[in-house]
Amino acid sequence: MTQKTLKAAVLGASGYTGAETVRLLRNHPHVEAVAATGNALAGQKLSSIFPHLGGRGDLDVIKAEDVRWDEIDVAFGCLPHGTSQDLIETLPSNVKIVDLSSDYRFRDPVAYSKAYGREHIAPERTASAIYGLSEHAAESLKGADLVACPGCYPTAILMVLLPLMSPLIIDTDSIIIDAKSGASGAGRGLKEGNLFCEVTEGTHAYGVGTHRHTPEIEQELNLRAGKSDIEVTFTPHLLPMARGEHVTCHLRGDVHDVQAALEAAYANQPFVTVLPLGSPPPDTRHVRGTNDCRIAVYPDRVKGRVIVIGVIDNLVKGSSGQAIQNLNLMMGWDQALGLDVLVPLFP
Amino acid sequence: MTQKTLKAAVLGASGYTGAETVRLLRNHPHVEAVAATGNALAGQKLSSIFPHLGGRGDLDVIKAEDVRWDEIDVAFGCLPHGTSQDLIETLPSNVKIVDLSSDYRFRDPVAYSKAYGREHIAPERTASAIYGLSEHAAESLKGADLVACPGCYPTAILMVLLPLMSPLIIDTDSIIIDAKSGASGAGRGLKEGNLFCEVTEGTHAYGVGTHRHTPEIEQELNLRAGKSDIEVTFTPHLLPMARGEHVTCHLRGDVHDVQAALEAAYANQPFVTVLPLGSPPPDTRHVRGTNDCRIAVYPDRVKGRVIVIGVIDNLVKGSSGQAIQNLNLMMGWDQALGLDVLVPLFP
Amino acid sequence: MTQKTLKAAVLGASGYTGAETVRLLRNHPHVEAVAATGNALAGQKLSSIFPHLGGRGDLDVIKAEDVRWDEIDVAFGCLPHGTSQDLIETLPSNVKIVDLSSDYRFRDPVAYSKAYGREHIAPERTASAIYGLSEHAAESLKGADLVACPGCYPTAILMVLLPLMSPLIIDTDSIIIDAKSGASGAGRGLKEGNLFCEVTEGTHAYGVGTHRHTPEIEQELNLRAGKSDIEVTFTPHLLPMARGEHVTCHLRGDVHDVQAALEAAYANQPFVTVLPLGSPPPDTRHVRGTNDCRIAVYPDRVKGRVIVIGVIDNLVKGSSGQAIQNLNLMMGWDQALGLDVLVPLFP
Amino acid sequence: MTQKTLKAAVLGASGYTGAETVRLLRNHPHVEAVAATGNALAGQKLSSIFPHLGGRGDLDVIKAEDVRWDEIDVAFGCLPHGTSQDLIETLPSNVKIVDLSSDYRFRDPVAYSKAYGREHIAPERTASAIYGLSEHAAESLKGADLVACPGCYPTAILMVLLPLMSPLIIDTDSIIIDAKSGASGAGRGLKEGNLFCEVTEGTHAYGVGTHRHTPEIEQELNLRAGKSDIEVTFTPHLLPMARGEHVTCHLRGDVHDVQAALEAAYANQPFVTVLPLGSPPPDTRHVRGTNDCRIAVYPDRVKGRVIVIGVIDNLVKGSSGQAIQNLNLMMGWDQALGLDVLVPLFP
Repeated sequence: MTQKTLKAAVLGASGYTGAETVRLLRNHPHVEAVAATGNALAGQKLSSIFPHLGGRGDLDVIKAEDVRWDEIDVAFGCLPHGTSQDLIETLPSNVKIVDLSSDYRFRDPVAYSKAYGREHIAPERTASAIYGLSEHAAESLKGADLVACPGCYPTAILMVLLPLMSPLIIDTDSIIIDAKSGASGAGRGLKEGNLFCEVTEGTHAYGVGTHRHTPEIEQELNLRAGKSDIEVTFTPHLLPMARGEHVTCHLRGDVHDVQAALEAAYANQPFVTVLPLGSPPPDTRHVRGTNDCRIAVYPDRVKGRVIVIGVIDNLVKGSSGQAIQNLNLMMGWDQALGLDVLVPLFP
Repeated sequence: MTQKTLKAAVLGASGYTGAETVRLLRNHPHVEAVAATGNALAGQKLSSIFPHLGGRGDLDVIKAEDVRWDEIDVAFGCLPHGTSQDLIETLPSNVKIVDLSSDYRFRDPVAYSKAYGREHIAPERTASAIYGLSEHAAESLKGADLVACPGCYPTAILMVLLPLMSPLIIDTDSIIIDAKSGASGAGRGLKEGNLFCEVTEGTHAYGVGTHRHTPEIEQELNLRAGKSDIEVTFTPHLLPMARGEHVTCHLRGDVHDVQAALEAAYANQPFVTVLPLGSPPPDTRHVRGTNDCRIAVYPDRVKGRVIVIGVIDNLVKGSSGQAIQNLNLMMGWDQALGLDVLVPLFP
Repeated sequence: MTQKTLKAAVLGASGYTGAETVRLLRNHPHVEAVAATGNALAGQKLSSIFPHLGGRGDLDVIKAEDVRWDEIDVAFGCLPHGTSQDLIETLPSNVKIVDLSSDYRFRDPVAYSKAYGREHIAPERTASAIYGLSEHAAESLKGADLVACPGCYPTAILMVLLPLMSPLIIDTDSIIIDAKSGASGAGRGLKEGNLFCEVTEGTHAYGVGTHRHTPEIEQELNLRAGKSDIEVTFTPHLLPMARGEHVTCHLRGDVHDVQAALEAAYANQPFVTVLPLGSPPPDTRHVRGTNDCRIAVYPDRVKGRVIVIGVIDNLVKGSSGQAIQNLNLMMGWDQALGLDVLVPLFP
Repeated sequence: MTQKTLKAAVLGASGYTGAETVRLLRNHPHVEAVAATGNALAGQKLSSIFPHLGGRGDLDVIKAEDVRWDEIDVAFGCLPHGTSQDLIETLPSNVKIVDLSSDYRFRDPVAYSKAYGREHIAPERTASAIYGLSEHAAESLKGADLVACPGCYPTAILMVLLPLMSPLIIDTDSIIIDAKSGASGAGRGLKEGNLFCEVTEGTHAYGVGTHRHTPEIEQELNLRAGKSDIEVTFTPHLLPMARGEHVTCHLRGDVHDVQAALEAAYANQPFVTVLPLGSPPPDTRHVRGTNDCRIAVYPDRVKGRVIVIGVIDNLVKGSSGQAIQNLNLMMGWDQALGLDVLVPLFP
């Protein structure tokens, strides 16, 4: 390859988004993961934590402070919220940041504090960070230094709803979003609720009426619609599967207007498919392991009601894949670099 | 046991609801399954079709026409819709019928034809059959000869919504029901969509805006509310699990009114638990294998919106368990007979 | 009920075997769980840890030291090894002990130390404890005060192999046991290997050539055969399922001799089914949720080789169910009390 | 790309191996899938059968007789045994054949008849076909016209055992193979045993002592060892997962000899990893979605016994991936072409 290779550090390589970032970078023509950090597990090989990453090109997990930052061009922040900003704010300014946590997603630091219960240590930085929903941020991403990747739920939901906001073609007082996620969306934390025996063969809702992704979703909807009072009902559910995110948006509007707005928004997007009206419902299996998003629109029996479904892989389009897509856009590259080799794994 | 035992025939014992009915009757003190029919599999032992039913008290699967009907007191109809009425209408009048199909659920035969695409062969019988949502039909079940058990989705949904209908304490133009079911809800039919490889590790909606359980739900809501124009949005999803049904009802109303109405409705019901406000969301695992229904109410962030969640085991409260509960009520017995030994199987 | 009720304490009610013991006791006519201990979670309701146990008869989780031991007749030890003996040795002598840990399984305290890496604090007690593989220990269980329930793997394996030991009808230098277990067999410990994402959709062996259940298995085989040199190859695998244990024993012997010995051994046992030669292989689903054990014998293509398969539910026959069966035998009751209401949950 | 592209037809594109072949060819630099056959489904788009293959480059499913064979360079046979030979023997001689069925795996047509219960219609062709276990057939594959890809079980097993055959370093009268497979190994056939509800949350053995892969395995072992009397015990199990194959080989031999032989055999193979002695057991998740094979050797507690574990993805190395690897070798290309972009999907 003739073009200069970017050296990447993956911060927090012991979680699922960190591992997924490493996985996806394996096929990137211009970016190489050269450092992987993880304070608790420093000293181990990455392949001893994630054996599936062994074989071709293992990495030593090191402490963040031991990274040779002068050799790093870009850092992928795969840390929990809070931890992320604490580290990112210490990095030298030459390092481009693609953060997957929620730390820089709020344009208003006060909204962040309210949602996450702590003061932001760099309020001006969060205010100026680019909210990296790739298809909707391509222009502003070009040349950006700090990108906040949307949460997995906001990604799926905003991919569906943003194109309906300007012009506003749905009623904003009846946006009901019922979302379903695989267990990897909850991360690799050691708690009973993440155990196999407590996830398999059953389902439950969580964060009912209170989930922290709701203000993030509302922020972007209002911004796009030029409003400030849009509120949504958002109810996530944990499903007995590892990957996949499925959002069912119950809206009031005209089915053909909605279909047309979505088709127009994503006409030339390599990763987004708006299915023709009348298609069978999309399935999370249809996008598993890829950066794809599929969207389908249905008329309801109830006149004036529309149901729009979106599916993504929460670890790819919902986190690590979109992060790489964002880096591509930041660098002025084809947004599909390194991601276009992905074909869904089914069954 | 001194009380005379009822002899039961299970019609359609080669499907999941048939097998579940046999399973549950094993512990019934007054009812014994003495015949199991299945035309395609006649001649086999029931345990060769469902080995888990082997051991204690196997049955021969026979053709329906070979049942000695004069010795049968009650028939559980576990056949597909259409097939069910064709057989049931041939049975002698001494046989009490508990039908689990959709054939007798519609009080209006025209509504049935519309939903199921065929004329009903006994329109007057469907009009007079008891709709057996047990907790809401106890009085009318007493002494009934023909009971139509609700569908699994209608059961979970009506358990949540019926108590809110009279007096009517929710807006009827914004009833959004997002439902999730395990694969056994789709039955044992041989089609690609039921294969392990096509159900595991993913999810999708189906029947979006068109599912046949919707008119059944609306029929009961309108009847209870004394209205005729209530419509609901109902979107079911297939989840990668065998059992369990979870309904998330997005409503407009007052959270305390809703909670109070539900608590009042189910105050003395052995199988229904209305969780206190503020409880963690119920999980389908909490009712697995039992006739239980758990309901929980949540305020939404959006003012005036309420989210009510209900969970059942689709094969027990959603079909075979409720069928037995209905028989108990028809006979004037304690409704919990044979069902109170069930404790949820977790994990 | 006229017969005096036994009061039971469940020690370690926050793990799966503790919860399962509580579940199963719900249907026991003579035993009532009146105390549940769990030091870290003391102060909570049992139903807040295990919501499926809520509703009918909740318990307060208390510290073991706060149990009113003078009111307790029997204690079920559901604690990790080591912890179990430390508590059990402090209990008053009037309390009968049914221990589910490995602490009292070794007749030789030195063998225990070797396998578990610590000295036993009551070597004479472990030497005299009854090894409670119920069907093979009925006589010695009668009136016993301290019973050590076998491990889940040893249970399944010894149910298959013990009847072949006396007279010895298989070659003892070629006993290869390949075992598969659901994730609940690993308990509720918070470690990455127990997470849903790391168990679903894959499998691996563990403890290859070194698993601590091997000496326990060999102890019992040698004892029964009157030998001391029997060794077995035992390789367990973790399967993506919550419950179920499946052992495949590759042996050298005569298929008809093996079948006959098994049939003779279990001729009148309510929980054990030896399938007829030529039967389809048993499945863990056929015993799920029950105290049943199914065994099937197959000739191999290789002359002189026999394959014997056994299946149990690891949480019932493999732990809590057998514990109750053992208590029944200790008390001189019908061994099936409280367990005969269990019918396999399928699907 | 400058090199001439090969045009490929995928025969039997409505099954899992057909779909997987199409998936994998998406990333092949020199081969393009231009035709997909499926008699029952002819007339449909491939993406309507397998929506995950939609989007980039759909195909029309056509009847085999409607393929323009003069434009086809290579055919991948993804049909059931029997059906495969019936079609393949009608193809023009310019078409190279990579057959994934069992039809050309037996060097002796009589052995084929015995195992599969029908006469082979082209006995001389099966006798001369190359048995395409890629790493062991590289030389003979070069320029071959007809390659029979090994079955999924034989692939995993022979990868483990072949290097131990010459020189022969294990006892041949004690080769016990316990194998576990995900449900995709059983194909997409519509039968109860493949339904989600009958596969999830349980396991069972099948073909005990009689599985048709056994003579295929023995054929290759004997051939390699220069013997004719090697027999193996092979017991496969169905696991509740879609993909993955795990073989546990219980052998008699010296652990270091075995390790050395395996390391030597696969020293420069891109897809095979022989883990160092003492490694944690490999998991099918570590190779999911890839053409990789991982092998690990363990000493048993029983002196002289060795346990060797091999894992593959049954749909990649076990079928479609190896088929492409074989085509690469037939063409004299780098064997990893199109397959080296695969990184395991975890979780």
